[in-house]
Amino acid sequence: MLFSPALNRLAEAFRRLPGIGPKTALRLVFYVLSMDEEAVEDMARALVEARRRVRQCVCCRNLTEEETCSICRDPRRDASVLCVVQEPRDIPVIEKSGEFRGRYFVLHGALSPMEGRGPAELKIPLLLQLLAKGEVKEMIIATNPNVEGDATAYYLAETVRPLGVKVMRIGFGLPVGGDLEYADELTMKRALESRREML
Amino acid sequence: MLFSPALNRLAEAFRRLPGIGPKTALRLVFYVLSMDEEAVEDMARALVEARRRVRQCVCCRNLTEEETCSICRDPRRDASVLCVVQEPRDIPVIEKSGEFRGRYFVLHGALSPMEGRGPAELKIPLLLQLLAKGEVKEMIIATNPNVEGDATAYYLAETVRPLGVKVMRIGFGLPVGGDLEYADELTMKRALESRREML
Repeated sequence: MLFSPALNRLAEAFRRLPGIGPKTALRLVFYVLSMDEEAVEDMARALVEARRRVRQCVCCRNLTEEETCSICRDPRRDASVLCVVQEPRDIPVIEKSGEFRGRYFVLHGALSPMEGRGPAELKIPLLLQLLAKGEVKEMIIATNPNVEGDATAYYLAETVRPLGVKVMRIGFGLPVGGDLEYADELTMKRALESRREML
Repeated sequence: MLFSPALNRLAEAFRRLPGIGPKTALRLVFYVLSMDEEAVEDMARALVEARRRVRQCVCCRNLTEEETCSICRDPRRDASVLCVVQEPRDIPVIEKSGEFRGRYFVLHGALSPMEGRGPAELKIPLLLQLLAKGEVKEMIIATNPNVEGDATAYYLAETVRPLGVKVMRIGFGLPVGGDLEYADELTMKRALESRREML
């Protein structure tokens, strides 16, 4: 029992968020009490409206408030190159690189027999429908570099290659700015595997 | 620009909270989207209600939803011993020790000439009114062990001692379970100053 039922309820609400433990929750509660009442109401409204308004793009399953997302609506994006990611949050990471001008497709997860996630639990049937239209010539698989992400990548490659689409996987290796000394053995293994001739 | 205006507004709202950077804000936004709509509405309500309902105890300035806080209302608490803290969040820390059965007074800050906080900006006039009633025999100053907390403690000691109240300061020294090797020099200095004879 903290100070009052209302404070306990707010602390519990904060604790439900990922990465927020009891101490951080308490710190946030006290911060909220110090805010203008209007700012707190704005925050509450932002919560409810984000949850209510945001849905998935009918085309790529990215998040949007419209029928289709801003990337799918953008005529300057190259519809012949499709980047497949696990989650909507992966898209801004790739966008920030400035290196990709194609479109995306969001799987909303990775294959995991352990957790009962097969192709139908992801958006893979929708992806195959999109590819069947024939517009996509190259698919870049940008699932996570871990067991589930790799398994998903292999499954997609096997399934999509017969459709005549060029299937690529993003490169793995040492992170730029990183120190070779601190690279773990798997990253080092991948970095050696993906070595390129210097020209 | 993230995915949609509603998501941006929520990310910005999260970023206003202390200790929440852009990456954490984004993670929280995606988590909110995965929650039940009802749970999000509960969270929004908890925010607004905590801010609206919670006020300061007229007696000790702790946080409460009533006229007086649960500690001041508790007849088993010893009204002759008063523990003075900077913030309401300090109270649960002391309560958890199980070592204190008196009452509290919350200053809501520490003296800071640099930031223009004098005795009147804190609740010191209200503290003096409370002490003038004559019920408090001992005052334990539990302000933070830093420059501002110490200055506040000295100011309070000077001001309150003439009222015939025994003025104490909580003990400082090595934290229990800590390693002497890692103690900083100021903590070590305080630990030596507050040495006690072993009996």
